[in-house]
Amino acid sequence: MPGLSNASSFEVIALWCVLFIALLGLGYALLLRKQIMSKDKGTVKMQEVWNAIRIGANAYLSRQLKTILPLIGFFTVVLFFSVYIIPPSAEAMKRFAGMSAEQVTIIIGIGRAVAFIMGAVFSLIVGQFGMRMAVQGNVRVASASRRSFSEALKIAYRTGTITGMLTDGLGLLGGTIIFIIFGLAAPDALLGFGFGGTLLALFMRVGGGIYTKAADVGADLVGKVEVGIPEDDARNAAVIADLVGDNVGDCAGMAADIFESYEVTIVSGLILGVALVSITGKLKWIIFPLLVRGIGVLSSMIGTYLVKGNKDGKSANAMSSINKGFYTSAGICVVSFFFLAQFYMHEWRAFLSVFAGIILAIVLDEITKYFTDTHFKPVKDIAAESQTGSATLLLKGLSVGFEVAVWQVLVIAATIMSSVIIYQGMDPIYVLYGVAMTGIGMLTLTGNNVAMDSFGPIADNANGIGEMVDLEPEAREVMAHLDAVGNTTKAITKAIAIGSAVIAAVSLFGAYLTDVEKVQKTMMAAGQFVGNTTLFATGIRISVPEVFVGALIGAAIPWLFSSLIINAVTRAASLIVTEVRRQFHIPGLMEGKVKPEYDKAVGICTSAAQKELIPLALISILTPLVVGMLLGVEALGGALAGVIISGQLLAVFMSTTGGAWDNAKKTIEDGLYGGKGSEAHKAAVVGDTVGDPLKDTAGPALNPMIKVINLVSLLAAPILVQYNRTNVGVIVTAVICILVIVGSILYSKNGGFESKKA
Amino acid sequence: MPGLSNASSFEVIALWCVLFIALLGLGYALLLRKQIMSKDKGTVKMQEVWNAIRIGANAYLSRQLKTILPLIGFFTVVLFFSVYIIPPSAEAMKRFAGMSAEQVTIIIGIGRAVAFIMGAVFSLIVGQFGMRMAVQGNVRVASASRRSFSEALKIAYRTGTITGMLTDGLGLLGGTIIFIIFGLAAPDALLGFGFGGTLLALFMRVGGGIYTKAADVGADLVGKVEVGIPEDDARNAAVIADLVGDNVGDCAGMAADIFESYEVTIVSGLILGVALVSITGKLKWIIFPLLVRGIGVLSSMIGTYLVKGNKDGKSANAMSSINKGFYTSAGICVVSFFFLAQFYMHEWRAFLSVFAGIILAIVLDEITKYFTDTHFKPVKDIAAESQTGSATLLLKGLSVGFEVAVWQVLVIAATIMSSVIIYQGMDPIYVLYGVAMTGIGMLTLTGNNVAMDSFGPIADNANGIGEMVDLEPEAREVMAHLDAVGNTTKAITKAIAIGSAVIAAVSLFGAYLTDVEKVQKTMMAAGQFVGNTTLFATGIRISVPEVFVGALIGAAIPWLFSSLIINAVTRAASLIVTEVRRQFHIPGLMEGKVKPEYDKAVGICTSAAQKELIPLALISILTPLVVGMLLGVEALGGALAGVIISGQLLAVFMSTTGGAWDNAKKTIEDGLYGGKGSEAHKAAVVGDTVGDPLKDTAGPALNPMIKVINLVSLLAAPILVQYNRTNVGVIVTAVICILVIVGSILYSKNGGFESKKA
Repeated sequence: MPGLSNASSFEVIALWCVLFIALLGLGYALLLRKQIMSKDKGTVKMQEVWNAIRIGANAYLSRQLKTILPLIGFFTVVLFFSVYIIPPSAEAMKRFAGMSAEQVTIIIGIGRAVAFIMGAVFSLIVGQFGMRMAVQGNVRVASASRRSFSEALKIAYRTGTITGMLTDGLGLLGGTIIFIIFGLAAPDALLGFGFGGTLLALFMRVGGGIYTKAADVGADLVGKVEVGIPEDDARNAAVIADLVGDNVGDCAGMAADIFESYEVTIVSGLILGVALVSITGKLKWIIFPLLVRGIGVLSSMIGTYLVKGNKDGKSANAMSSINKGFYTSAGICVVSFFFLAQFYMHEWRAFLSVFAGIILAIVLDEITKYFTDTHFKPVKDIAAESQTGSATLLLKGLSVGFEVAVWQVLVIAATIMSSVIIYQGMDPIYVLYGVAMTGIGMLTLTGNNVAMDSFGPIADNANGIGEMVDLEPEAREVMAHLDAVGNTTKAITKAIAIGSAVIAAVSLFGAYLTDVEKVQKTMMAAGQFVGNTTLFATGIRISVPEVFVGALIGAAIPWLFSSLIINAVTRAASLIVTEVRRQFHIPGLMEGKVKPEYDKAVGICTSAAQKELIPLALISILTPLVVGMLLGVEALGGALAGVIISGQLLAVFMSTTGGAWDNAKKTIEDGLYGGKGSEAHKAAVVGDTVGDPLKDTAGPALNPMIKVINLVSLLAAPILVQYNRTNVGVIVTAVICILVIVGSILYSKNGGFESKKA
Repeated sequence: MPGLSNASSFEVIALWCVLFIALLGLGYALLLRKQIMSKDKGTVKMQEVWNAIRIGANAYLSRQLKTILPLIGFFTVVLFFSVYIIPPSAEAMKRFAGMSAEQVTIIIGIGRAVAFIMGAVFSLIVGQFGMRMAVQGNVRVASASRRSFSEALKIAYRTGTITGMLTDGLGLLGGTIIFIIFGLAAPDALLGFGFGGTLLALFMRVGGGIYTKAADVGADLVGKVEVGIPEDDARNAAVIADLVGDNVGDCAGMAADIFESYEVTIVSGLILGVALVSITGKLKWIIFPLLVRGIGVLSSMIGTYLVKGNKDGKSANAMSSINKGFYTSAGICVVSFFFLAQFYMHEWRAFLSVFAGIILAIVLDEITKYFTDTHFKPVKDIAAESQTGSATLLLKGLSVGFEVAVWQVLVIAATIMSSVIIYQGMDPIYVLYGVAMTGIGMLTLTGNNVAMDSFGPIADNANGIGEMVDLEPEAREVMAHLDAVGNTTKAITKAIAIGSAVIAAVSLFGAYLTDVEKVQKTMMAAGQFVGNTTLFATGIRISVPEVFVGALIGAAIPWLFSSLIINAVTRAASLIVTEVRRQFHIPGLMEGKVKPEYDKAVGICTSAAQKELIPLALISILTPLVVGMLLGVEALGGALAGVIISGQLLAVFMSTTGGAWDNAKKTIEDGLYGGKGSEAHKAAVVGDTVGDPLKDTAGPALNPMIKVINLVSLLAAPILVQYNRTNVGVIVTAVICILVIVGSILYSKNGGFESKKA
């Protein structure tokens, strides 16, 4: 095999098998698609609603694509030409040994650019295709719910599985292809692949998140709170926007986000694996994670296929069926990983690391469940505070959210420590590799996880369609059950998404250190200047004032990011409120004689979501560059640590608090403390509304943001090592970047420059 | 001079002068006290209310003292006997050169214990005496307001100045005495002094903060929101508790907190100064900060004395008079510091560092003002969101609070960088010294700051008394003006308190590094085992997995702490709500015929505030020990960085958001969006209520907490260097500590073990 001259025949076969499994996963997705599309779309009225959702969702996605295409184009060019500043690695020269230096340079340049596009396009496919399928699925679920619970469940879950298998398949395909082509020179292209996927995920998360919550909050504030009509009532002008939002936020956004985590764990695993290969001379450090992922895809296919409800099934049954699928997949994985470690790796450490990832996913899940599920004390306590009004309910929620952040951080800390203990006495790079393997293990069952997650908005939308067209009570009951199951599965995935983001970021942080060390060593060997500190000698010392300052700046970014996002949602929601209020005054609308102009609300959300994309991306991309230029690579390392630590705490806090408030409201709606319409319920609705943008916009957007910052740092490290603030050009560039950052903040805060004129 | 053999005669005289100035400051406080006590206490009715406040406040303080005395006693013993594990430093042996090793050991042991008690007692005096004076002042202000605005202003401000001068005087006295006795061996005792003050401040902050907000939130929720009677209405059973709360929280808590910052900046300045003395052989590094502080005390005396309103004065006039006093003090300081640096230090760097501190205080103040003052966009925007309900108002507030945290962190980062630039090219310890001097500079005008801050609750209480006894409208107007001024001055001090806490913590972090390095060097020279890493060789490397884990744990502590505190306030407020509701049903109460049982509410608050003291202190003290024992001294360094970075962000966020919500409510009460009683107002009240415990309990409590953790680490460092997790005894101790921490968390969460039975 080219570039992998020392691969055993088992390893060569294994690699091709992994590639085949990735394609198999994609084929399975197509097969499921055919199954779903063959189902009926229900009555004309149902299709009418569905059509409105479909058009709104597609319009959003194409407008978003238009907004971000220039930036994608820009980075493609930058990544191609970067090869003239950051020359190909020694491994690349070895890999394409027969060619001239210029030829290799061009090949690597193309490799970086194409890998970036591939990452971006794959992420886009997962998000867009997954969402389009969800939209196709929802009306079919609504229709099937008129026939049987089990059929509705099957359609909803399998539609979700399509996105799941796309995530799995494309993530594995990209990593494997790059590895097959570039061999040990893969890190060069892998970073581009990771960056493309992460950047797109950031766009999908931010845009989708703002869209969905602006619509949701706006619709609820006027509809439920002011006018007192139920959720998803057809007279509410924002109801279609709300349903579209579920798709662009919970489907497209979440899928792109998990795809990106899935991809980045492979990227960091392979980068650290390549480093180990160069130390040990053995290829197994790279083949192992790919095989683990391959097994994961296969086991997800088997597990997800098993999910189907009984004829007389209800929600409890549905949940247990989904869980059965999950545990089947998990069982297959654990057994296979054990044998793989034993007979291929010839050591138990690799197995323990991957296994730790599976355990981590389960523990994070249990913690989230305890703090956000209606059956446990925290949510009950929050609900009880509703009796003394929204203020105490909110305070109790903050207290719970702060606490969960602590436990989740401690679990992450314990996981990192488990790598320290597993690889005790070995070179620190093994510990980092162990952490990366934990990330690989954690996301092994991504197929199942995404299926469970996408299930949520599909069921939610089906329920909304049912409400809007007034379906018969039996069908409504089926959908209400599915919706409830969807809320649980969504919460589970969210915990895993954040946990895996942090683990992936920690591996990237490790990769950053390894990378800078390597570059500095190479440059020193060539007699070049590498700045005043060499990280391989010092590590990243937070006791150095500049590094501490870097950490302060890094830690501040998630707060800035969250501030701007929450602000955007609040502003857009206010616009929606005004619009919906206006439409309620249209004569005949409240009586149901006149249809509201749904597209107005859809338009407001679409345009609000667009405005934040570029400024927020610029902040994430430029801040690490400024820190690196002005304070040096060690300080940038400090900033990465800062952003991971503070981002993790803030993200968990926001996600969980929002979830807990949401469920506290549900408890009350189920009849506690006076039930719907009571003062307690009103207090709980306030909590839920405050929590919405925290849990569905700001919190989840931090996942890709943290990784964008890490990947940008990794990509820029070789340049940053060469230049620092002693160079006039660097200072000028840094100042320009700072101006762009400040401009972005102002632009975002004011909702674009146009709004100032208004 | 003993222990300072190389002191110049100027330096000896200067030291005695500083001691004299400290005493002078205290004398000035006594003089002011005499002035205040000679004023009349108003009518019998006024004295009745005042008496109730006085009794409630005193009862709280003595009960608190009883709760914490055992812990104080325990630590006194521990600090004394610590000398048998951590032997006196080489400097101590030199200082007491004529004595035997055993004698020196006992002297240093006594020194540590006595310094600890001194720190604790001074902190207690500042808090207790200051608060008692505030209580004496408030009724006299109420009475004077019936005569003239200027007299009322003068009494209120001068009463505040008493606390201010106590803070200044005692802080400087303690540091100077220790230095005169121990010379270069001072760090040993200084740490005890700092720890005593900080621990007490933690108690006062936590206890006072919980007390004041439980009463405030509880009183408002029923009184203002449910029943619709005004604030401070005599029929509200929690009204006295609320007024007591202002004193124990805003007076005693804040004063102890700022005293502790004032003290800790001296402590860290002197420790780093001693390190520089041993490098350069020059005493000026220690004398300089003491002289700066001495000048500060003198200038505060002059500045504060100038504050008095005109006869026809109104609030604008009052504010400008207070500002005139402040800028006079600041002017005197800047000029004196310049000459001091020029002619004594013979270098401009020391001046720049101290000056940076003054600039920092002003910038933090301006940022806080912009984000919390009613005249600027942020608060106006928050108020505008009230039109779409409390949810959007809350979200906007969160967005604003997140943003301020970012700017404040960047200012702190810029300040640290300014030290880096000022001391460019010199040993890193100079940079740390520079940061410490910035802290010294920042708190130079503590006398003025505390005076301004204490002024707030005094005016607030006077206003409350006026409301309860129905004073004549003219007098009420005077007090309303004073109250408004107090709100502004309080906000200013809060920003400085948090900023100085972080700067002080960063200096302590620097001192930790210096200290551990010194201990390890000494031990290595003596051939002893110092663990696997030597910090003087490595620094604190966050790229080492254990250190990263340490940073994660450290960063989590402020979140845990805040969670428990908010939880305590919410729980206590709920009890108050129930109690006040019950009393409103007492026949004749609403008609004013029957007086409520104020002492019931006072009792609830007192007992709620007690319960949290010991568990929260244990968490702060034991967590760094556990990290140090199980993960090592380098990881503990990581934890310190984590706690500072995350604590700063969270503290600023909580303090500012609360302030902004409070003022948004005030804007509406001044007539915007329908004014009092409108839907917008109700929404704003929810925001204010949520913000209350954030800005007055959890946020400020993080200041002393961060420093307790840093000081505990500094104190324990010499032991932690010797023992780590390879030792069975250490593991057992760590496990016991973890159990105590978990027990404390559970105890705090449930409001004590008794409540479980109920």
